[in-house]
Amino acid sequence: MDQENKVANEEGDIECYYGKDMEDRIYSQPLLTKRHNTTSQIAIVGANACPVESLDYEIIENELFKQDWRSRRTIQIFQYVLLKWAFALIIGLGTGLVGIFNNIAVENISGFKLLMTTKLMLEHKYYKAFAALAGCNLALAAAAAALCAYIAPAAAGSGIPEVKAYLNGVDAHSILAPSTLFVKIFGSILCVSAGFVVGKEGPMVHTGACIASLIGQGGSRKYHLTWRWLRYFKNDRDRRDLITCGAAAGVASAFRAPVGGVLFALEEAASWWRSALLWRTFFTTAVVAIVLRAFIQLCSTGTCGLFGEGGLIMYDVSAAKVAYSVPDILAVILLGVIGGIFGSLYNYLVDKVLRTYSIINEKGPAVKILLVVTISLLTSICSYGLPWFATCIPCPIDTTESCPNTDLSGNYKSFQCPPNHYNDLASLFLNTNDDAIRNLLSTSTTKEFHISSLFIFFIAIYCLGVITYGIAIPSGLFIPVILAGAGYGRLIGRLFDPITKLDVGLFALLGAASFLGGTMRMTVSLCVILLELTNDLLLLPLVMLVLLISKTVGDMFNHGVYDQIVKLKGLPYMEAHAEPYMKHLVARDVVSGPLITFSGVEKVGNILHALKTTGHNGFPVIDEPPFADAPELCGLVLRSHLLVLLKGKIFSRDRALSGDEVVRRISKFDFAKAGSGKGVKLEDLDIKDEEMDMYVDLHPITNTSPYTVVETMSLAKAAVLFRQLGLRHMCVVPKSQGRPPIVGILTRHDFLPEHILGLYPHIRLRK
Amino acid sequence: MDQENKVANEEGDIECYYGKDMEDRIYSQPLLTKRHNTTSQIAIVGANACPVESLDYEIIENELFKQDWRSRRTIQIFQYVLLKWAFALIIGLGTGLVGIFNNIAVENISGFKLLMTTKLMLEHKYYKAFAALAGCNLALAAAAAALCAYIAPAAAGSGIPEVKAYLNGVDAHSILAPSTLFVKIFGSILCVSAGFVVGKEGPMVHTGACIASLIGQGGSRKYHLTWRWLRYFKNDRDRRDLITCGAAAGVASAFRAPVGGVLFALEEAASWWRSALLWRTFFTTAVVAIVLRAFIQLCSTGTCGLFGEGGLIMYDVSAAKVAYSVPDILAVILLGVIGGIFGSLYNYLVDKVLRTYSIINEKGPAVKILLVVTISLLTSICSYGLPWFATCIPCPIDTTESCPNTDLSGNYKSFQCPPNHYNDLASLFLNTNDDAIRNLLSTSTTKEFHISSLFIFFIAIYCLGVITYGIAIPSGLFIPVILAGAGYGRLIGRLFDPITKLDVGLFALLGAASFLGGTMRMTVSLCVILLELTNDLLLLPLVMLVLLISKTVGDMFNHGVYDQIVKLKGLPYMEAHAEPYMKHLVARDVVSGPLITFSGVEKVGNILHALKTTGHNGFPVIDEPPFADAPELCGLVLRSHLLVLLKGKIFSRDRALSGDEVVRRISKFDFAKAGSGKGVKLEDLDIKDEEMDMYVDLHPITNTSPYTVVETMSLAKAAVLFRQLGLRHMCVVPKSQGRPPIVGILTRHDFLPEHILGLYPHIRLRK
Repeated sequence: MDQENKVANEEGDIECYYGKDMEDRIYSQPLLTKRHNTTSQIAIVGANACPVESLDYEIIENELFKQDWRSRRTIQIFQYVLLKWAFALIIGLGTGLVGIFNNIAVENISGFKLLMTTKLMLEHKYYKAFAALAGCNLALAAAAAALCAYIAPAAAGSGIPEVKAYLNGVDAHSILAPSTLFVKIFGSILCVSAGFVVGKEGPMVHTGACIASLIGQGGSRKYHLTWRWLRYFKNDRDRRDLITCGAAAGVASAFRAPVGGVLFALEEAASWWRSALLWRTFFTTAVVAIVLRAFIQLCSTGTCGLFGEGGLIMYDVSAAKVAYSVPDILAVILLGVIGGIFGSLYNYLVDKVLRTYSIINEKGPAVKILLVVTISLLTSICSYGLPWFATCIPCPIDTTESCPNTDLSGNYKSFQCPPNHYNDLASLFLNTNDDAIRNLLSTSTTKEFHISSLFIFFIAIYCLGVITYGIAIPSGLFIPVILAGAGYGRLIGRLFDPITKLDVGLFALLGAASFLGGTMRMTVSLCVILLELTNDLLLLPLVMLVLLISKTVGDMFNHGVYDQIVKLKGLPYMEAHAEPYMKHLVARDVVSGPLITFSGVEKVGNILHALKTTGHNGFPVIDEPPFADAPELCGLVLRSHLLVLLKGKIFSRDRALSGDEVVRRISKFDFAKAGSGKGVKLEDLDIKDEEMDMYVDLHPITNTSPYTVVETMSLAKAAVLFRQLGLRHMCVVPKSQGRPPIVGILTRHDFLPEHILGLYPHIRLRK
Repeated sequence: MDQENKVANEEGDIECYYGKDMEDRIYSQPLLTKRHNTTSQIAIVGANACPVESLDYEIIENELFKQDWRSRRTIQIFQYVLLKWAFALIIGLGTGLVGIFNNIAVENISGFKLLMTTKLMLEHKYYKAFAALAGCNLALAAAAAALCAYIAPAAAGSGIPEVKAYLNGVDAHSILAPSTLFVKIFGSILCVSAGFVVGKEGPMVHTGACIASLIGQGGSRKYHLTWRWLRYFKNDRDRRDLITCGAAAGVASAFRAPVGGVLFALEEAASWWRSALLWRTFFTTAVVAIVLRAFIQLCSTGTCGLFGEGGLIMYDVSAAKVAYSVPDILAVILLGVIGGIFGSLYNYLVDKVLRTYSIINEKGPAVKILLVVTISLLTSICSYGLPWFATCIPCPIDTTESCPNTDLSGNYKSFQCPPNHYNDLASLFLNTNDDAIRNLLSTSTTKEFHISSLFIFFIAIYCLGVITYGIAIPSGLFIPVILAGAGYGRLIGRLFDPITKLDVGLFALLGAASFLGGTMRMTVSLCVILLELTNDLLLLPLVMLVLLISKTVGDMFNHGVYDQIVKLKGLPYMEAHAEPYMKHLVARDVVSGPLITFSGVEKVGNILHALKTTGHNGFPVIDEPPFADAPELCGLVLRSHLLVLLKGKIFSRDRALSGDEVVRRISKFDFAKAGSGKGVKLEDLDIKDEEMDMYVDLHPITNTSPYTVVETMSLAKAAVLFRQLGLRHMCVVPKSQGRPPIVGILTRHDFLPEHILGLYPHIRLRK
């Protein structure tokens, strides 16, 4: 978080720290390419992962807090509650508007591109058509990559892992910065339009979180957009709530699935949840749904250019009759198993590819762009080249759609085919991803696609999906997974056609569900999202079944794709459960490093020295005689509070209490937590030499109620305490008497497997 | 929990204890009718509330646990995981079957009753018709009341508050006992058939929880149904998970709403939640959905008697076109506000009525039955008498249904009307509640009901709903609320008819949503349940809006109905947030009662004395010289573990460690927590006089990792710790040195407002 790091990041010369060295320690050892044998983790350049800061969800009950709390009037509390709802409203509005803007832009850009290609194809100018398609894709891709590489490297990728880590209490550098928001919105539009096998869903979640963070931090100081009245929310807890709302709004906006959004936030994104939040996220997603609906109604009059049936319209499969018997159930179980296997393989491959790309991306922005351009070219070749392998199919007679279709959407693309014939692969490849999914999910069109075409499509999309994630563009994982899953789902539907009564469109849907379950390992939220997408509740039992099976099968092999990416990025994510080997250890066993404590009334010089020489963020305060009979733990002070106190310069020549003066002279707003990377810095202090020997009273800013554990507390239980309460520091106190009143401080990194297994390499083997 | 209490309960002579005296104290003062001025709470006789026992979700990490954990083989862990899923499956199957049985039984009984009445009406034997109707109702009601009053008083009411309290950590006497399950199932069938304005939804939730509890406790010892291999689940944590699954299955089974069931468990029922549980509850509700579907398919061939379109079929409103504009939104907002006001008034009235009934019910089972019979008679008079006020309406020409309808279901009841006319009030009153809701929600039938009829219906149902809840029958609240809400919703739809394009059926649905939101104050789960009931996702934004408004309006006046009932029953429910005044106190301030501690190796006589003279469930163990250098806190032993240890009689003449022998001689299964009210009791011990002076080593059963707080920890933060981790005991340790190593133990009751405000009456006023 310090100045040097920030500058380094902006220059693209990124250093990464993680695990043991990340928290409360001096940032000194770049661990970028060093492979840790114990964990085989490598931090990715990209590089949203570094440096990281832990968040603190504890209520800092110091004297200032109590003063403030006592002086708070009812009107202020009312204002506070009202603001929370107002913010939820703004987040919902913002995310909804971005969602609709994204869709209109994508539909127009890629519509223009596809219409041009189709026109050239009809004139039999096949090479020109390819040049036009590939050229457009290349230009769009390069623009997206440039934005990403030069302005906000943190905007690359899905964003869901970063949001997940943030909500777990890990604030990686600039992942929610305004520049990231900007690049995420426009980069996502560009790269989806560029025909990449990527979605806008992950980026929408990230966008929602960024909007929430921007509002939660009271605007951006860098861009001179700040609001004074937002200072009510200067703490991590309120921001966490806002960002949870933002994540929910993102899903709601991407899929037009408000309930699904809430459940996504609950199941996948959030690490802490409370009942009140359910209601607030629900409100946010309701606002999103209303905004989307209003704009879709507005656009239905034709005012949004090429934005028509694509994008935000649901894939309505409710026309298909849902009636199933035993062979259908067997087919569905098969789908689930296949989904689990393909899904875990997908995760494995994505992991490998990400590791490779991280080495390539390390070489600088130009190389990043080159990689994006290469993949773009490959994608263009696939989408234009593969349809040539498909044989032309005569148009069906009983369809109501025009065939072949020269319009933007629609099932039947003419491509190179003679009149009254269509190319089924072109209907999938030379379309926006949304339209391709719609075609795959279309019901009552059993024979529309050749089995061979579906097979080629599935293989191509699977491979393209794997190699596309990790390049320097905002790239969602939902759409590639749904595309590939719907592909093999429909394929299996065709194979089972003789013995099943289920429509192939429903098979495609169940295939998408199985592959989603196999990669992302969500259950309820995916189920609801799919139901909201397809508007058919009767499918519920089948979708549930397929998700349960694919998740179970997938879990046998590896973790969900987002968990994997979080780990790969080296973000110190804390799991909800303690690792089994932690039961063999006690809290004392993992306390590390020299403990630095302050007296209740401490010399300024000592404090300054400690702040300079350590990276600790919390320091225990010990009351000694004459302020106490014997040394006793007074509480914990935070680095940020110390910096504010020192800047206020309320020093005294002699060792005496001066708490009242502090309370009088420094506003509690000065102590409010600033945004990530902001706030008073060590360099901002201007302490004169004669002040170094003066004393400062730490009592007013000491949190006298830190959570403590006895040193012999089982580490597993200490970890549960730490995680459940969302702590940043936990004090370890001695069990026996006659020793200093504190043994050490545990932070997030002390509970990480890397740290513990580093200290006790063989403990994993013990039962 | 002791024998006397149990006997007393079974004899109907119930004593109630609550609040301060409930936990870890000697049960001595019956507080039944004593009104506490500070809280104006009164414990209801009924009397599921008393006596209560706290549940303990902490992992008791004592030597035995560690031994067991070390010796556990992979196959056992696998078995354990598999069993969890198997149990979820069984709970799903069981609850689904009960749900379908309930529906078939209700449809057949009330179908028979209604057909008989209709037949007599057609023959113009009006008095006979009334006699038949009232007689049937009376008999069914009396049977239900007798079951409830004599066999299981705990089965009265909805059951949701009790399940909610259980999942909060409060095990009230016999609320999940097998007898309660039996009465809940059959009582619910009887009283729904008896035409009461009650639903089967709350009872289904309770039933699901009872089934889960029965399985979780390894069957019932009383009825000689026990399974040895269920001993894996002998702890409160696993049971809590099972019962959460059961509650979800109950909602899923009642409404055929699997996703709604999961969300209900999450939003309303559960106090603790973890991600793994989401998946398991989801699986359970999926099983329920499949069972229901299978049986409905089976019954569609006509094998289930009169069970036809009623019961478990959804109220399909998807035929209505959803298109709305500004006046519609205004009407919806109005509905929300009305729902909030009516809802909070409903809660207020239910509260008052419950207090009155508690005094009446106190007088014994006969009086209870008399009350039920009175209400039944009143209900019969209303349902038969009020339709006479309605004028006959000519049958519509354009309907596809037969009119007038002499069949069971259907919109148009003939009643006293001439041919080709129907009585609209009879269509609502002389029907099962499910069919009445279907009629109210029917779309494209705008003029079916007179405005005056809807008004009469709403008033009657509202009043009947208020006076019916609280009598000694299993009675769900959902159906009365949906009925009344749909009534005024349709009424307002009729009034807004000239200026709105929304169907009156949708208005009825929104009315039901608003009233549900106004009484129950749930949001997401209600929304999803309603969508699953009505099979129309397009309504989502409107339902969300109406729920948000009605909940907000309702919250201005009072709490949700379930919270209110929990409080009224005197169950020590712990809220997720700490009360504001707790910030003024520290943990030490609320420690009460004399602290009884044991030595690491303690005299048998001392232990026995402590067990006899106190009701404490946890005792701190202090290690003293020669086992430690200075007195230090070794940990905490539980009463139940002490009893098992004493029963094992591993005593020694001299003060020495004998831990190994304990581990060798007593199986860890003996220490597993028995079901509620079971396990070793003090009376079971047979300690001889010469054994009283012998020593017993407590170390093997001492939990060496109890959660502790320093005495100066803010009470608000201690409460958060206690609640978040689901503790039963929390040790308060001294801050300064040279004092005994433990200050006291905090339990659930120490955090209750009643206790704190009893100690510090004026603290509520302090800011």
